[in-house]
Amino acid sequence: MRDVVIIGVGMGSQWGRYDGSLVELMAESSLDAINDAGTDEIDAVFVANMGAGRINNQTALGSALIDYLNLFPAVGASIENGPASGGTAARIGYMAIASGIHDCVMVTGGEKMRVAPGPVVTDFIATMSHPEAEYIYGITFPSLGAMLARIYFKKYGVTSEDLARIAIKNHNNGLMNPYAHIQQKITLEGILTSREAKLNNPMIADPLHLYDMCPVTDGAASIIMCSLDKAKEFSENQQIKFSGTGQGMDTMAVHEREDPTFLRAVSDASDQAFTMAKLKKEDIDFAEVHNAFEILEIAELESAGFYERGTAHLAIREGETEINGRFPVNPSGGLKARGHPVGATGVAQLCELVWQLRGEAGERQIPNNPTHAYAVNFGGFGNNVVVTILSIV
Amino acid sequence: MRDVVIIGVGMGSQWGRYDGSLVELMAESSLDAINDAGTDEIDAVFVANMGAGRINNQTALGSALIDYLNLFPAVGASIENGPASGGTAARIGYMAIASGIHDCVMVTGGEKMRVAPGPVVTDFIATMSHPEAEYIYGITFPSLGAMLARIYFKKYGVTSEDLARIAIKNHNNGLMNPYAHIQQKITLEGILTSREAKLNNPMIADPLHLYDMCPVTDGAASIIMCSLDKAKEFSENQQIKFSGTGQGMDTMAVHEREDPTFLRAVSDASDQAFTMAKLKKEDIDFAEVHNAFEILEIAELESAGFYERGTAHLAIREGETEINGRFPVNPSGGLKARGHPVGATGVAQLCELVWQLRGEAGERQIPNNPTHAYAVNFGGFGNNVVVTILSIV
Repeated sequence: MRDVVIIGVGMGSQWGRYDGSLVELMAESSLDAINDAGTDEIDAVFVANMGAGRINNQTALGSALIDYLNLFPAVGASIENGPASGGTAARIGYMAIASGIHDCVMVTGGEKMRVAPGPVVTDFIATMSHPEAEYIYGITFPSLGAMLARIYFKKYGVTSEDLARIAIKNHNNGLMNPYAHIQQKITLEGILTSREAKLNNPMIADPLHLYDMCPVTDGAASIIMCSLDKAKEFSENQQIKFSGTGQGMDTMAVHEREDPTFLRAVSDASDQAFTMAKLKKEDIDFAEVHNAFEILEIAELESAGFYERGTAHLAIREGETEINGRFPVNPSGGLKARGHPVGATGVAQLCELVWQLRGEAGERQIPNNPTHAYAVNFGGFGNNVVVTILSIV
Repeated sequence: MRDVVIIGVGMGSQWGRYDGSLVELMAESSLDAINDAGTDEIDAVFVANMGAGRINNQTALGSALIDYLNLFPAVGASIENGPASGGTAARIGYMAIASGIHDCVMVTGGEKMRVAPGPVVTDFIATMSHPEAEYIYGITFPSLGAMLARIYFKKYGVTSEDLARIAIKNHNNGLMNPYAHIQQKITLEGILTSREAKLNNPMIADPLHLYDMCPVTDGAASIIMCSLDKAKEFSENQQIKFSGTGQGMDTMAVHEREDPTFLRAVSDASDQAFTMAKLKKEDIDFAEVHNAFEILEIAELESAGFYERGTAHLAIREGETEINGRFPVNPSGGLKARGHPVGATGVAQLCELVWQLRGEAGERQIPNNPTHAYAVNFGGFGNNVVVTILSIV
């Protein structure tokens, strides 16, 4: 099994609404990663995408991206695993290289969602819920997020103020991230405690307000990976090692879980990745977590083992997860501020990890030269989760 | 890089129209493969599917299938590569095992297409054509098949009778395949030369008649793969070695190819697979080729190098590709008779290869104990092609 490193990353232009085609969107981030790596000798392209067949009338995106960028003879395919598509595609990219089949692989995640009306997007997201036990009854993902928050509020004393605090932190980080969709400073007063807060931050799925959840975003992100033994042939860039990968599962229907606040898939995927990387939780310097809903930032940090269960919100109150805190979380702004184009998110998380590990994150750079970084990419409502650990070589 | 073998295969019940859900359809073939292998200790499930998000309102099929069959802690994802999704998923399954990440992988391809009206299916298939140069102008895949046939007719003297002869051979083979959708004996008189032929076999896209193309089919197929070194721990079955895999590409838009009768992607993918397997064309005992249109059976055999260009139809006239001929092609009946549920086809090809290599193909068994077998799975209109070579261990 060969070691694998990331030699290039890219995210195109600021995420938000993209007027070109999905392939053009993905081509932008791909070219950024190619320019960053300094090579286009790519053997294979794995495209992470969830909804193009349904909302963009397009399939076979691997072929389309290779054709558009004239990357022949690179071969391609698409990987779909709900919002964990990006992390899954990177994991498959890892397998492709470690197996010896390919030497250099590009993984590009992309989603162009804003072309569809809101209810169509909500329905498209719901297609990954349980087909007979959830989808046909009209479940939506905001409603699942709200149910999880209710249990958390009751069981552990988490409050709406805690969720708002996470949103404020992520918006602050997003303001320092040129790719972030949401570039807006928010305050506790503005979204929760003032008279205008109810207008600014309406209730969407009780107890979740608008600012407790991520926006609908168009965006793409790319990484270029190669075998460690051939990295010098491809790129002069600092190599970032793909040191751990894990994938965990849970029941598809959320109501079948004994305790929905424990995200078994996050726990299992993390354990696998830590074992492979030969690292402990304490070795990780910062994390990108999949906060499609801010309550997930809490639940994932606990289920991954970074905090005891029921305590992450207390650490967050103390500012531990701020960029200058003891354990920075979502320095990119996370899904809340960077946005959540579902197929792109898992790849964008890895871009942020690489920039931070290289010391290239500009204003939002985590201090003290981080060495090991963690990303969790959450598929379904936590039924299929991919964890990646990257390290300085 | 570990060697990989197939230890179980399954195709559920006869293909055609399936009244249950897509997950139930895929569960049937998966259970058959699990029963055949005699193990359910599966680490990962890769689902090959093209259209569920669009026509079945379902995504994240890997999660859904694992949940339905309670295969936890197996992890899963979906692979989409147009009609080459099945072969691509098997290739990724190979990488997963060869890399050492997983020991035992199930690949299940499935498609439930007949739920959609004909024009919706034709449109769904066309979503894999070039988005700006083909799709938006209303191109359909039967029209691309017809254009290829016209060039072949003019350049090499292939005739409608040659295409009919291939269909008759494939229908004959399908009659001996209990999984084949189309179980119907046809004759040259009935589909081409009699007065009734025009009614029986109408022109669809000149010069292609109804019987020159595959039907629209619901179906699923599964294989279980594991590392050679651990195969005995998983199964008592005869091991069939995954001896070669290749993937080739061509321009997405067919009009950009200098000579559309030369399928560059088939040629490249074949060359890679033969190199990896350390075999020559003459070593192959039989082939399953991707005859979504019968003209492709000719073109693929030539581009793969089994016949000189412009000569395959002459060999077919001599009966060489019949089950008892010198080089049997599509003993299963191929896409023409078995049917073509797009995500399932590439996996079903490998099922047929395994049954034939094991000597378990019943009435349609190829004589003289075949040792090496070839399958070509054709994505897009030949822009993304996967070739697999399987061998007796």
